Amino acid sequence: MFFTSDNAGPVHPKIMERVVAANEGPAMPYGADPIMDEVRDAIRTTFEAPEAVVYLVATGTAANALGLACYTQPWQTVFCTPMAHISEDECNAPEFYSGGAKLTLVPGSDLMCPDALRTAIDAEESRGVHGAQRGPVSLTQVTEHGGVYSLDALHALTGVAKDYGLPVHMDGARFANALVALGCSPAEMTWKAGVDVVSFGGTKNGCMGVEAVIFFDPAKAWEFELRRKRAAHLFSKHRYLSAQMAGYLENGLWLELAERANGTAARLADGLREAGAELLYEPRANMIFAAFPRTLHKRLHEAGAKYYLWGSKLEGDDPDERLAARFVCDWSRTHDEVDAFLALL
Amino acid sequence: MFFTSDNAGPVHPKIMERVVAANEGPAMPYGADPIMDEVRDAIRTTFEAPEAVVYLVATGTAANALGLACYTQPWQTVFCTPMAHISEDECNAPEFYSGGAKLTLVPGSDLMCPDALRTAIDAEESRGVHGAQRGPVSLTQVTEHGGVYSLDALHALTGVAKDYGLPVHMDGARFANALVALGCSPAEMTWKAGVDVVSFGGTKNGCMGVEAVIFFDPAKAWEFELRRKRAAHLFSKHRYLSAQMAGYLENGLWLELAERANGTAARLADGLREAGAELLYEPRANMIFAAFPRTLHKRLHEAGAKYYLWGSKLEGDDPDERLAARFVCDWSRTHDEVDAFLALL
Amino acid sequence: MFFTSDNAGPVHPKIMERVVAANEGPAMPYGADPIMDEVRDAIRTTFEAPEAVVYLVATGTAANALGLACYTQPWQTVFCTPMAHISEDECNAPEFYSGGAKLTLVPGSDLMCPDALRTAIDAEESRGVHGAQRGPVSLTQVTEHGGVYSLDALHALTGVAKDYGLPVHMDGARFANALVALGCSPAEMTWKAGVDVVSFGGTKNGCMGVEAVIFFDPAKAWEFELRRKRAAHLFSKHRYLSAQMAGYLENGLWLELAERANGTAARLADGLREAGAELLYEPRANMIFAAFPRTLHKRLHEAGAKYYLWGSKLEGDDPDERLAARFVCDWSRTHDEVDAFLALL
Amino acid sequence: MFFTSDNAGPVHPKIMERVVAANEGPAMPYGADPIMDEVRDAIRTTFEAPEAVVYLVATGTAANALGLACYTQPWQTVFCTPMAHISEDECNAPEFYSGGAKLTLVPGSDLMCPDALRTAIDAEESRGVHGAQRGPVSLTQVTEHGGVYSLDALHALTGVAKDYGLPVHMDGARFANALVALGCSPAEMTWKAGVDVVSFGGTKNGCMGVEAVIFFDPAKAWEFELRRKRAAHLFSKHRYLSAQMAGYLENGLWLELAERANGTAARLADGLREAGAELLYEPRANMIFAAFPRTLHKRLHEAGAKYYLWGSKLEGDDPDERLAARFVCDWSRTHDEVDAFLALL
Repeated sequence: MFFTSDNAGPVHPKIMERVVAANEGPAMPYGADPIMDEVRDAIRTTFEAPEAVVYLVATGTAANALGLACYTQPWQTVFCTPMAHISEDECNAPEFYSGGAKLTLVPGSDLMCPDALRTAIDAEESRGVHGAQRGPVSLTQVTEHGGVYSLDALHALTGVAKDYGLPVHMDGARFANALVALGCSPAEMTWKAGVDVVSFGGTKNGCMGVEAVIFFDPAKAWEFELRRKRAAHLFSKHRYLSAQMAGYLENGLWLELAERANGTAARLADGLREAGAELLYEPRANMIFAAFPRTLHKRLHEAGAKYYLWGSKLEGDDPDERLAARFVCDWSRTHDEVDAFLALL
Repeated sequence: MFFTSDNAGPVHPKIMERVVAANEGPAMPYGADPIMDEVRDAIRTTFEAPEAVVYLVATGTAANALGLACYTQPWQTVFCTPMAHISEDECNAPEFYSGGAKLTLVPGSDLMCPDALRTAIDAEESRGVHGAQRGPVSLTQVTEHGGVYSLDALHALTGVAKDYGLPVHMDGARFANALVALGCSPAEMTWKAGVDVVSFGGTKNGCMGVEAVIFFDPAKAWEFELRRKRAAHLFSKHRYLSAQMAGYLENGLWLELAERANGTAARLADGLREAGAELLYEPRANMIFAAFPRTLHKRLHEAGAKYYLWGSKLEGDDPDERLAARFVCDWSRTHDEVDAFLALL
Repeated sequence: MFFTSDNAGPVHPKIMERVVAANEGPAMPYGADPIMDEVRDAIRTTFEAPEAVVYLVATGTAANALGLACYTQPWQTVFCTPMAHISEDECNAPEFYSGGAKLTLVPGSDLMCPDALRTAIDAEESRGVHGAQRGPVSLTQVTEHGGVYSLDALHALTGVAKDYGLPVHMDGARFANALVALGCSPAEMTWKAGVDVVSFGGTKNGCMGVEAVIFFDPAKAWEFELRRKRAAHLFSKHRYLSAQMAGYLENGLWLELAERANGTAARLADGLREAGAELLYEPRANMIFAAFPRTLHKRLHEAGAKYYLWGSKLEGDDPDERLAARFVCDWSRTHDEVDAFLALL
Repeated sequence: MFFTSDNAGPVHPKIMERVVAANEGPAMPYGADPIMDEVRDAIRTTFEAPEAVVYLVATGTAANALGLACYTQPWQTVFCTPMAHISEDECNAPEFYSGGAKLTLVPGSDLMCPDALRTAIDAEESRGVHGAQRGPVSLTQVTEHGGVYSLDALHALTGVAKDYGLPVHMDGARFANALVALGCSPAEMTWKAGVDVVSFGGTKNGCMGVEAVIFFDPAKAWEFELRRKRAAHLFSKHRYLSAQMAGYLENGLWLELAERANGTAARLADGLREAGAELLYEPRANMIFAAFPRTLHKRLHEAGAKYYLWGSKLEGDDPDERLAARFVCDWSRTHDEVDAFLALL
């Protein structure tokens, strides 16, 4: 009953097999390994983007910060939601990598609203050289609260960005989970929807530590390579990153794992609802935020269930107080686990 | 016959086994995995440094840049040799991580000379607020040309640094190779010799991608953690870094692999010398720089030998021109390979 | 009728006289001029702070960014209001100077509310290494909307900061205008109220271009000097900065000019109110925000009055629409000008 | 007898007159003052560069660091001499402003040699993404040792830069002194010689604190404006910068002052030579480096002469030891002073 985060789960056996299989004899370092050629081809095919440039890094924060930095001048501001990972969970990495750019937090929920975005961009209008200049719009798909933008919503947001000539970044740490939730193609959820660069996550969905940064405009290639090296994110024994991503993409494993994670989360959400819990957001992918009485939380914790309370504390006098909590399912959570958990409720 | 670099070699099977063994069920992320506890204990014991703080990152450049940054203010300069990895091979990562510090290249060879260091430090003396301020001394052990500082040499250099109150960093990407060459203890080669922070390399010596940053002063702990996170080098699925390092340290594997690499290199060096090649530097660890006629280089390349020419080109008219080349042996190079190579000479 | 900004006004003749008087023969550069000794003494006396360290720079943004940087680590966040100069009008200078820190915009008006500050600080609580760390609180006195914190309000805010061990910066671009509004001493408005570093403005109140950065903790001295030099804000012919500040402080000129500016603004505010304008904020110092019909704005513009509309445009169909505007009086605006302006209303 | 530096001298009365004359009534801030229009026109005419963009800042380090930053990516290296002001006297300002670029010190004297430049550029060749990338070449005219590049020398150096597609920056803190030494036009010494951006100094030659940054490619305009504002170098009461530069350029005052300074220095150099001093470099402009016995230095110091010893100390036993010293003449040094000084020798 381990629902703390999808980064707590293990590597899928097929991905580990590829890593082990890559461990034969010498290989050229720094991305010149032949497995990387396979990965590049697979991603270009998957995204229907034969010109795309594709790079691997080992952490989601590196993917976000490096991808964004290629589109952000130090005197600009990045538009994102107040709860975006780049704002709340990266310890100023976007500021560091961009050389001191700002983030403008577009008011509202984890699902950015096009009107709010337009208002926020407009607000940076009239200060000329004195204010921060408008920079990229960064969207998170799946959002931090488990939401998923529809294709229409994506088009509306990127449309606002394009009205002002601003580039669009997608934080896709849970890209696969969003994709299977929407049932669309990777191209539809990215470049066809106006996205310029995407952090394509692998780590949270069964890999060991690998994310692809995909630029649909190949002009960014060399700048990215220099930024990655300068940031110490270029791996010498790169084949082990390549192998993970190759295994992840092979035979649609990445989609299978996301479907599994989303399905387990849906089962858990249904059970929570039936047990009287209040769902704070409509769960669309593999994350659930639910509130229920302290007494139940205590029972679950005592039984060994692992998950994070969200803005509240287990300790407290009132047994009936409803405490919010976050539950995340990765590919490795099982229906049995969910059922055992629900039985305790 | 693959002698390009020790980063071209595979992962040692025992290390891979530990990675695979770590792949069981969920684990706490971000360094809270139990294997990291084992690693921390092992390093503290190995270095006879019960107070040391120990962190893992995935690349040598990250280890150097983060470790140095904890000791370097943006208005300072770092003293290193002209061929130091931090100067030539990190695409300005030290400058990036330190927020714009400078490197002062102490003239001379890859083995820094204490007098030259003192002169270089003195030269920054008289400019007050106008010049860069004196920052840490960074030493590389094994050096970029395959040299190894003796304990006396280390003491002499750190003694100069201490005369000026400057901290000392050791780039130990090939730490194990130096250690077995000296036959001393890790403590003797580091804190007992006046080193404050060391990049303890694993990647080049049989790991997949892991380096430990070891601070002998625990006061640097929290700053390092923030710098690592901000630089996107904190791994969520950290257990796979821990597992590599645990396997590396277990039963002295790290020393065994370095002995093997150094031994293979010594065999190669002897053979080269016997074949009439000129050795540019006295090989002490697992790197050899040798010059011999173009015609021999051509023959070796045609036979499939892999290594880098050093400042010269294979193409050229004069068959007798002596071209310098670099040969690096990692743990996985065999005596048979060396003998096959030498047979071609 | 020139009410655009207090940076549009001329230098007071007595200050210019000091600049001209300083122009005799050679003088030691970089702050070693004897006039700087006079300035340092005057400020220490004025602030009843014999240990304070005092530096001069030429712009308000430099004073803010350098002063803040001495108290802000790159992984921290600075707490300020959404309309703070450091957030809206410095083109990411605080981010640049701090090496990539963030600003947290405490919700509410231009007068920060202690409860809102506490909530904002608390909100950065639980993310450990993942979130930005808490940094200094920056208060603006006079605020961007012309407000002035009472001493009680300052104590309440700095009290919150001290509860969390956070340092406090005061942006005093209009320090003198606030001081005469409160009728307190410089010490009471700064270190006695818990302020650690203050940007003590001269430029907007009759100088040519000079601001003092005053640290009440002398331990910051050398770091500031290095930061100032590195940022290219150390003047070689420093005596001309010193002379301005010396003239500004001499015989209480700085207070006299602020009283004059505040008085002119009060006369203008009264007149505007009588003429039916709506005052958006209670004017406390030398800035007024007032709304009145477009038709009146047009009449004033045609008559040559200079001031900025605030979030609205002169062009438009509806003659009765009330448009907000900002009026700033510097020391050189006269009662005659105000009366001529009011006559047009 | 004040020969420490040309930044110790006063402002020329005609320049001060312009500053005082500018002090009438309100003026638009931030460079929108009408005097700036006059300055821009004057510089474009002077440089025969009608498209040039012209900005003012108050310090030479700001001019250099901002001008260079517009041509330097953070992963690049700037080629300069080991004694360049940007390397030795700006406390890492170029590194700060460029976001962490490196300086490559081209070996040799203060007058960069084209072959040495070519070798240094070539040396950055073969490391691909791992090494710093080639950035601009920065030349100092007058050099730090008082040398002046001939037009041929400039063409040879910029020719090397252009061979590699690298931009060229000129640190012209003593631009006027070099120009009158060469007797050529400003255009010949800059854009006609392949210079892309020049720091056109005023401070050392009779101004209070003003330097122009001149870009011959107007495409850099907006980036410069943002960088200047972000660095806190945009003056609100800009007219006082404009007035200095206007007075400096009016009726060729800038050339007259440089001729005077160079002439005084020549008289001093002749006298020193006659008195048996050894001139370390051939003085071409307003700086002299000369060595003579300690006993003479002591006599001069006791008589109140002010100048800096260069790498040696006045204290010492040997009265005959020849100590090197630097002498700088600004426009305000007189022949009488020189003669009085020489009389002491």
